Amino acid sequence: MATPAEISRHPRMHGGSANGRHSSVRWVRDMLAASIRAGHLPESAQLAEDALVSELGASRGTVRLALRSLADEGLLVRRPRLGTIVHARHARLEIADTVDRSWQGPEISLQIIDQRTVPATAFLRSRLETEDRSVRLLDVLFRRRGEVIGIRTAYFSRDVTYDFGEYTGPISMASLSASHFRTPMTTVVTEVTAAAADARTSVLLGITENSPVLCRTQVFAGADGHPLQVSFDQYRSDRASFVTEPLGLASDPPVVADRTATR
Amino acid sequence: MATPAEISRHPRMHGGSANGRHSSVRWVRDMLAASIRAGHLPESAQLAEDALVSELGASRGTVRLALRSLADEGLLVRRPRLGTIVHARHARLEIADTVDRSWQGPEISLQIIDQRTVPATAFLRSRLETEDRSVRLLDVLFRRRGEVIGIRTAYFSRDVTYDFGEYTGPISMASLSASHFRTPMTTVVTEVTAAAADARTSVLLGITENSPVLCRTQVFAGADGHPLQVSFDQYRSDRASFVTEPLGLASDPPVVADRTATR
Repeated sequence: MATPAEISRHPRMHGGSANGRHSSVRWVRDMLAASIRAGHLPESAQLAEDALVSELGASRGTVRLALRSLADEGLLVRRPRLGTIVHARHARLEIADTVDRSWQGPEISLQIIDQRTVPATAFLRSRLETEDRSVRLLDVLFRRRGEVIGIRTAYFSRDVTYDFGEYTGPISMASLSASHFRTPMTTVVTEVTAAAADARTSVLLGITENSPVLCRTQVFAGADGHPLQVSFDQYRSDRASFVTEPLGLASDPPVVADRTATR
Repeated sequence: MATPAEISRHPRMHGGSANGRHSSVRWVRDMLAASIRAGHLPESAQLAEDALVSELGASRGTVRLALRSLADEGLLVRRPRLGTIVHARHARLEIADTVDRSWQGPEISLQIIDQRTVPATAFLRSRLETEDRSVRLLDVLFRRRGEVIGIRTAYFSRDVTYDFGEYTGPISMASLSASHFRTPMTTVVTEVTAAAADARTSVLLGITENSPVLCRTQVFAGADGHPLQVSFDQYRSDRASFVTEPLGLASDPPVVADRTATR
């Protein structure tokens, strides 16, 4: 007979289910997407429904819905005779930078597509710690293997000019900025969110309007701590993700938390 | 007369424009979204089109398209007599954790909605460094001010049981896990991407199907470096973003990059 402690630990006592299957499309989709990004399902691998049903412990219907969803999002390609195959591997970019960890070499290139002087908004003046009434705007495309995977709008002082048209090579901000700013950029604060691509952006990125894009806002600072650049990135979510090095977790003060049983 | 150096620096020489306006909907939308998240446009602030046109240096049409897009995504609320107002501030979560930097106090709560034992996929066995054939799955909702802002699916050893139903308090993984794992979690590797919400997830999150969601895959490890948990998060992109502490930028080897002029 189960002890009271065992009973209280039974999942059904906590709003859970004891059913041992992956029954949610989200579970299956998350698992497949992560496996593709990590290379567990390698580029051009053909996915067999039977094997996935068994590996994932999910119903055929759930697997099919997940595959369709991943194909709609561009992680998989469905071809008449070939079946469902894994699309080219993601660029796994450093959260703070544009360095692709999953590839050695200068695979990513930059191309300037617009630059102009625009009014400095309150947000930009605050982030750049400047009273200037106008700033420089630069639009850059990121390409990987020639395909556009992202776009950046960078704002910085009018004194700075980026004077290349296309750039291929080591593209970390530390190296790229050395020739354009008086002091190299050494630190960055990043905020990441998601959005739906607007009409013009979707054309630039080669995706359908309202597709999910991965957005990144960054403030770059020099060695003296003074901010040098604010930038806004939008990446194709089927082509790029942001990864971190191992980070330490926040430790809270040792407060006793409120717990509410929900029986 | 301009010198050759000045001419070569003129933006029109580099595919750019000398037009001094924010003419792209993406530029205006990015700027407004960042201003809202950072509190420069505070919660419940009413947005006046005239002021935005002047502040942003954009046409009225561009501002209107950007506002409509932000309203569609839930960052703004449009009300008949009130006009366009800023929705409640984002939760700005630490990239590695669920701690909300923009708010002091236990504003975020957790609720377990499902748990079960499922087959361990190759991806999970690799990430958890285990040969176990099955693992524990736990589904948790994140609420902020009562509203669901995200959902997490966590996978870990069958030996571990999360035995709360609802939890309010310090919710960093470091503190939360102490009572559930034998060793506290101390480090995490995170990958962030975006996706479109599937049907069931959109119902759980209270958004329309295919809305963009911010996704996070994390591997948590204990003090000895052994992985303890893999989790998949999906957050409403209109309610949460991930922020980093200042990070150092990667420094490349001092290679001379290829530069291609595109005249």
